[in-house]
Amino acid sequence: MAKPKKTPRPKSETPKGFRDYFGPEVTARTEMLKAIAGVYHRYGFDALETSAVETVEALGKFLPDVDRPNAGVFGWQEDGEGDKPGDWLALRYDMTAPLARVYAQHRNDLPNPYRRYAMGPVWRNEKPGPGRFRQFYQCDADTVGSASMGADAEICAMLADTLEQVGIPRGDYIIRVNNRKVLNGVMEVAGVLDPANPEAMEHERGIVLRAIDKLDRLGVDGVRALLGAGRKDDSGDFTDGAGLSDAQADVVMGFMEAKRESGAATVARLRELVAGSQTGEAGVDELEEIAALLAAGGYGPDRIEIDPSVVRGLGYYTGPVYEAELTFEIFDEKGRKRQFGSVAGGGRYDDLVKRFTGQEVPATGVSIGVDRLLAALTAKGRMERAVQGPVVVTVMDRARMADYQAMVAELRQAGIRAEVYLGNPKNFGNQLKYADKRGSPVAIIEGGDEKERGVVQIKDLILGAKIAETATHEEWKDRPSQFEVPRDQMLAKVHEILEGQDT
Amino acid sequence: MAKPKKTPRPKSETPKGFRDYFGPEVTARTEMLKAIAGVYHRYGFDALETSAVETVEALGKFLPDVDRPNAGVFGWQEDGEGDKPGDWLALRYDMTAPLARVYAQHRNDLPNPYRRYAMGPVWRNEKPGPGRFRQFYQCDADTVGSASMGADAEICAMLADTLEQVGIPRGDYIIRVNNRKVLNGVMEVAGVLDPANPEAMEHERGIVLRAIDKLDRLGVDGVRALLGAGRKDDSGDFTDGAGLSDAQADVVMGFMEAKRESGAATVARLRELVAGSQTGEAGVDELEEIAALLAAGGYGPDRIEIDPSVVRGLGYYTGPVYEAELTFEIFDEKGRKRQFGSVAGGGRYDDLVKRFTGQEVPATGVSIGVDRLLAALTAKGRMERAVQGPVVVTVMDRARMADYQAMVAELRQAGIRAEVYLGNPKNFGNQLKYADKRGSPVAIIEGGDEKERGVVQIKDLILGAKIAETATHEEWKDRPSQFEVPRDQMLAKVHEILEGQDT
Repeated sequence: MAKPKKTPRPKSETPKGFRDYFGPEVTARTEMLKAIAGVYHRYGFDALETSAVETVEALGKFLPDVDRPNAGVFGWQEDGEGDKPGDWLALRYDMTAPLARVYAQHRNDLPNPYRRYAMGPVWRNEKPGPGRFRQFYQCDADTVGSASMGADAEICAMLADTLEQVGIPRGDYIIRVNNRKVLNGVMEVAGVLDPANPEAMEHERGIVLRAIDKLDRLGVDGVRALLGAGRKDDSGDFTDGAGLSDAQADVVMGFMEAKRESGAATVARLRELVAGSQTGEAGVDELEEIAALLAAGGYGPDRIEIDPSVVRGLGYYTGPVYEAELTFEIFDEKGRKRQFGSVAGGGRYDDLVKRFTGQEVPATGVSIGVDRLLAALTAKGRMERAVQGPVVVTVMDRARMADYQAMVAELRQAGIRAEVYLGNPKNFGNQLKYADKRGSPVAIIEGGDEKERGVVQIKDLILGAKIAETATHEEWKDRPSQFEVPRDQMLAKVHEILEGQDT
Repeated sequence: MAKPKKTPRPKSETPKGFRDYFGPEVTARTEMLKAIAGVYHRYGFDALETSAVETVEALGKFLPDVDRPNAGVFGWQEDGEGDKPGDWLALRYDMTAPLARVYAQHRNDLPNPYRRYAMGPVWRNEKPGPGRFRQFYQCDADTVGSASMGADAEICAMLADTLEQVGIPRGDYIIRVNNRKVLNGVMEVAGVLDPANPEAMEHERGIVLRAIDKLDRLGVDGVRALLGAGRKDDSGDFTDGAGLSDAQADVVMGFMEAKRESGAATVARLRELVAGSQTGEAGVDELEEIAALLAAGGYGPDRIEIDPSVVRGLGYYTGPVYEAELTFEIFDEKGRKRQFGSVAGGGRYDDLVKRFTGQEVPATGVSIGVDRLLAALTAKGRMERAVQGPVVVTVMDRARMADYQAMVAELRQAGIRAEVYLGNPKNFGNQLKYADKRGSPVAIIEGGDEKERGVVQIKDLILGAKIAETATHEEWKDRPSQFEVPRDQMLAKVHEILEGQDT
C-alpha cells in the first residue's frame, strides 16, 4: 500500500518585507507613542482610531506619490451576494485617506474645526528593501475645517514640542517651513505655470518639483541639469530634464537658494522672486503670518525656520508645507558621516475631503515616522536602557513548586518583576543560564538544606557578572554577590539589592 | 461634444463589519492595554509584536473553531515573479498562530521557556452582526516551552490580578479551571473514546463538547437531549444528537455537575468519575496540582475555582483550560438581567508549534477580549470620566491672532490642554458652541476693550452650565461664572478654576 502523501510542513517565516518586534523594541515604541499622544492631547487634538481596512474606493487605491506611481496597497475582493460582486477592500496606506473618509462620513457630529491625532501601522505594497518594510508606524495630527494659518503654525510648534518631549534636545532638530503657493508663483515667473491654463506643463512642473526635492542628494549642478536638458547619473542612466531655458532655470535656482540669515530677509527675497504672481504673493503673505504666529508663541528660528528648499514629494499640498529634520550626524551603513535627516513632514491639503463630498474643506496636518524617530534615538544612544529582567526563583526540588510559587507571588505583589523557573529543573546550570539570558538582576535559591534552616540564598547577578569580568579588581574584593537571609527577609533583601543596582 | 463622463464620488463608509473609534474610546482602550501590560510585565512576560500580515500557510488559513468551520481570514495573493506564483498572505485572525510561527522561527534565540505577551487587533472574515466586528483587539499571554502546571497556575493568577488592576473588584469575577484530560477520561468511561483507537467516534465527541459548552443557554435538559437523540429548538429546527445511551449520558451529565463546595471535594468527585481511565486520572492530578500552586500563592476559590462545566469551544486544547467570567449582572438588549459572562479564556495546547518543526513543544496561554472588558467596565459605570476638553481661547479680532497664539502657548507650556479657536471667528456664538461641543472647562476672551485695559475675561463653562440648568437655585446665586483678571494673571486664574472643577 502506498503511503499517504504528507502535507509539507509550513515555513516559519514572516512574509517578505515584514518583521517581528521583540521586548524592548515594542515597549520603546509604546513609550514613544504615549509621549507623542501626550503632547498632541495638550494641543487639543482628540484620538481617532479607524479600522485598518478601508474600501479601495475610499482610499483612492494608489499612493498619490508621483515618484512611485505603481506603489500600491494590499487589497482583496469581498465575496459577492447573488449577482452583486463584493466590494474591493484594502489595508490603509496612510492615516490621511481614512481621516478624509471619517470627516466626510461624520462631519455633522464632529466639532468644527476638527483636530485629531491617529497612531498605528500602515501598509504599503512595495518592493521591500534593506531597512524598508511594508508595515510601519505613523503618528499623525491634522486639523480639518480651518483655513487659518494658525492651524499650520500650531502644528509646527507642536512638532517642536513633540521632538523635545521624546528626547531630541533643542539644537538637534530644525523644523523647516515653506509654501507651495510661493513655489507656484516662482513657476509662473519662470514661465512653466500659466494661471489661465493651470493644467498645461504639468509634466514639466513635476520634474521641477522632484528635482528640487533631490537637492540634498544631487547638489546644485545635478538639480540644474534636471531643470534643463536632463542628467546622466554615475551608472550612465539618463533622466529626462524639464527642458527649461537657462533664464527659467535661474529663477527656480534663485528660489531654492533664497534662504537668508533671518526669516524676514528670506521673506523679502521671496517677495522679489514672485513679484507679479498673485499666487506667489499670497504664499509669501502666508509664510509671513506663520512666522509672526510662531514668534508670538516663543518659537524662534532656532527651532522653526523658513526654508524655500523644502518642497515635499507629495503632489497634493496646496499651501504651507513643513518638515522636521534631525541635524545631528550619524554614520551611515558605509561608515560615512551624514545628517540623520527627515523624521516628520506635512502641510496643507485643502481638497482631500472634496473627493467624497464635492465640498472643499481646508485641512493641514503632519505625519511623524515613528520607526525612524526610534532609530534616531537609538543612534544617539538616547533610548532608555533595556527592559529590566525578572527576578528568577530557581527550582531546586520539583516537589516543592508550591513554595517557589509562594515566593514569586510575594515578590509580584510587592511590584517586583519576578518569575519561577518553569523549564526542566534537573540541570541547575541551565536555570542560571536562563536567568542570564533574561537579564535577571537577582536569582533566589532554596534547596532542601535552606528550607530546613528557614533561609534562602539570594544571588546579585549584576554584581556577580561585574566580579566575574574584573576578578582581580580590588573594588569587588570584599563585596559578596550572594547572601543568605531568613526566608521572611527575602523580600526586603531583594528590594535592597534592586535599589543598589539602580544607582 | 459629449461631456466627459464623471467618475462617481466614492462613498464615505467603513467597510461592513468595521468601525471607527473616537476620542475617549481610543484613550480608554490605550489605558486598559497599558494596565494589562503592566501586570503581564510584572509576571515576567516580554512584549512581542508580530506583523499583522502572515503567509496563509503559517496561519493554517482557517480558524480551528469547530463551531464555525467556514469562518475565515482576509487573504490575497502576492504578485508572482516570472513563472513563480506569488505567496498567499492574510491578516492574522488571532495572536496564537503568529506566536507559533515566531517560536518556530526564532527558537534558538529566545529564552526557554519563553513568556510573551501580545496586544493588538485581529481580523476575522466573518459575517458581521450587531456588536460583532471583523476587527477587534486581543491581549494574549502565553508560556511556550514549559510542561509545568506552574505555567498554567501562574496564568490563572495573572488573569485575576489583571482583572483587579483594570477595575473589576474581587467578587465581581471568577476564574474557572478545568482540564481536557478529565473530560477525555469521562468520555472513555462513557464509552465514546477508545484509547486504543483515539480517532474513532470523533464526531460524537464533538457533539458532546459543544453540548457541554451550551449548558448556560440550553440548561440541563437541552444538553441531555443533545447527548442523546437530538434537540428541536423553539423555532422547530432540529440539531442532531451524539446518540449516547442514557447510561452514557449519565456519566457525561455527572461530570458537568461534579462541582462541589470546595476544590478538594470537586477533585474527589472527578476522581470517582474517571476511575479506570489513565488519561482522566492524569487530568485530575493536574487539576489538583494547579489548585495547590494557586493556594500557595494566596489565590483562593473566591478568585479561582475548579469547575468541570468549562470546556471552551476550541478543539486544540490538550490539558488545563481556564476562563474568566464577570459575575455581576447587567441588562441585555431586551432589558433582561443576565450575568455579563466571559471576558477571557485559554488553556494548554501542546502541539501547535509541532506543525512547523515536527517537534512537540508544550505551551499554555490566555487571551483577553479587550473590547468586551471595556464594555463590561462601561456597563458598570467604572470607566474613567470622559477626556477633559481643552481650554478654548476665543478669537475676538482676527488681526490679533498672534496675541491669542501667545496665550495658548503659555497655557500649553504650563501643561494645560488648550486651543485657540481656528474656525471662522465672525460669529462669537459659534465659538462658544464649539467650546461646548469640545467639553471645554474654560473659555478665554480678549476683545479690543480688554486688550486696551490689559485684562482678559475668563468664563468657567462648567459652573456656567450648572447655573444655566438650575437658574433659581440659591447655591449659585452669589458665584460668578465669569471673571476679569489682568492678562498676566490669566494662567493662575485658569489653574484655580480647573482645580476647583476637579473637586
